[in-house]
Amino acid sequence: MGIQKGMGHVVGIDVGGTKTMVCIASTDGNVKLLEKWETSQHGKPELFFEWLFDGLKSLLARIDVELDNISGIGIGFPGVISQGGRLSHAPALPWPEGDLLSYIRQYYQGHVKLGNDVNMALLGECWQGAAQGKRHVLMLTVGTGIGGAMLLNGMLYEGAGGAAGEAGYAIVDLPALNGQPLDGDAFGPLESVTSGTGIGALAKAYFKEKSISGSDSVGAPQVLQGAIAGDADALAIMEKPLQHMAAFIGSATSLLNPELVLLGGGVADSGDYYVNEITERVPAFTPFHVDIRKAGLGNKAGAIGAAAAAARIFE
Amino acid sequence: MGIQKGMGHVVGIDVGGTKTMVCIASTDGNVKLLEKWETSQHGKPELFFEWLFDGLKSLLARIDVELDNISGIGIGFPGVISQGGRLSHAPALPWPEGDLLSYIRQYYQGHVKLGNDVNMALLGECWQGAAQGKRHVLMLTVGTGIGGAMLLNGMLYEGAGGAAGEAGYAIVDLPALNGQPLDGDAFGPLESVTSGTGIGALAKAYFKEKSISGSDSVGAPQVLQGAIAGDADALAIMEKPLQHMAAFIGSATSLLNPELVLLGGGVADSGDYYVNEITERVPAFTPFHVDIRKAGLGNKAGAIGAAAAAARIFE
Repeated sequence: MGIQKGMGHVVGIDVGGTKTMVCIASTDGNVKLLEKWETSQHGKPELFFEWLFDGLKSLLARIDVELDNISGIGIGFPGVISQGGRLSHAPALPWPEGDLLSYIRQYYQGHVKLGNDVNMALLGECWQGAAQGKRHVLMLTVGTGIGGAMLLNGMLYEGAGGAAGEAGYAIVDLPALNGQPLDGDAFGPLESVTSGTGIGALAKAYFKEKSISGSDSVGAPQVLQGAIAGDADALAIMEKPLQHMAAFIGSATSLLNPELVLLGGGVADSGDYYVNEITERVPAFTPFHVDIRKAGLGNKAGAIGAAAAAARIFE
Repeated sequence: MGIQKGMGHVVGIDVGGTKTMVCIASTDGNVKLLEKWETSQHGKPELFFEWLFDGLKSLLARIDVELDNISGIGIGFPGVISQGGRLSHAPALPWPEGDLLSYIRQYYQGHVKLGNDVNMALLGECWQGAAQGKRHVLMLTVGTGIGGAMLLNGMLYEGAGGAAGEAGYAIVDLPALNGQPLDGDAFGPLESVTSGTGIGALAKAYFKEKSISGSDSVGAPQVLQGAIAGDADALAIMEKPLQHMAAFIGSATSLLNPELVLLGGGVADSGDYYVNEITERVPAFTPFHVDIRKAGLGNKAGAIGAAAAAARIFE
């Protein structure tokens, strides 16, 4: 467990492509500070972590806490983290892979938990958000891509290689694959249809087929706004993304029997429309009941969840 | 924990529609006795448990152990078991639902673990069979129907309502549903295509379409035998069941990132053909690696796994 002079505070960090969010919380779940920093575009992880720990020390100084005295640090990354703390598959970062733990150890010797950012966001929701008190939760983030994370038996489930939750590769429409094998470097089949990117592509194809011009700038936000307003074209475009996502959630519910499916990300966040549609459609795709809710913490979930991981709440 | 005079022995019982298998093992994994009994057709659970505990006492007497002195009893049933020990959804039994724990408590006050029979079979494979030493395992039984069970983070995962593992309801071919909602009392979409029952139905439809008569008696065993022998009709019939199962296993691998998928049940047990075909096909349906193996203990897995549950090995 390392140095633990002050059992009181933990640090949670959510590392994104352009923004880094930092949270300082007490181990009993009180968020003391939460800041969003513009990530300096350091091309090397050693420079990034130097910048990060400089900022962290300044932040901790504000509440009179020294880095050595915190109980743990959790950090979420948009990629896969192996048990040994190695990052891979992080195309959103300037350093998509590397042995991150070794850099961190130059600054901090206590408890460190590195993880996938969606996993951290789920922990945030379980600690302080819409999944408090739940033990079996599937979280799906529907944004530019599709992310997934699971709390099972009250613990974060990361899988054998730390890659669990890749819901975007789920297959609900086998004939649409046309016999082509999946490409691990591309969007998965579910992701291609249900993500914001997928909805945008479906919109372009829809307007092209209808020979409606001037629709090049239409993306998921416009489609969702249109659907909320009852626009017939937007509703037609959303039909496939909603049915595919509902079929996936139904299948995952039959397999995992979770008590709650939490929907986050930009698409799910667009008013109540998306979550209501999914909630209405899922029962046709599974004989088992599951609650479906919108995530509650927005983009703060990752940093807060990383703090929960630092405090070992869901182990 | 109740009475624990002799920490040495546990009992595992696998209750089927016509057979009951009983295993007595030491807590360190040594199977002392394993017997298969014809289940007397008692219409009531109280009569069944009277018969069961009479037989169990006689069996224990053979190794000079008293019922009160065993460390625990595990029992698997072909249905859903709630946390409180209530059985439901067990159409193969003459008493498809009921508060089973209350009957058992009339005979034994120590540690009792009731569970789904496929969950118990998975524990058997993890304790003594093909999944020893693994921490993240998805087991699928492909027989008359489709069963599923998961060991995640080294523990049995049963879901919020004890119903986890219902892989048969997974949807890999949304267009084939034709907009019809799933029927929880009928075979699920994956089960309809990939189970032995499903393979038999596909064979009948295939021969009918080809106007080949005399094929009414063809079922999954004949189709599998034919496929193993390279018969063109049998290979054609197996194409869809194999592709759908491989697509499901691929999707489940992307979601759960298990280290091992274990295939059991009559269809999977028919030589190496089935497991080899699935192993070859799965990589096209997920970017993640997973080992695929045939289950090792056959129909003994359930009773042995129930003994493992009695010994609290995978908690």
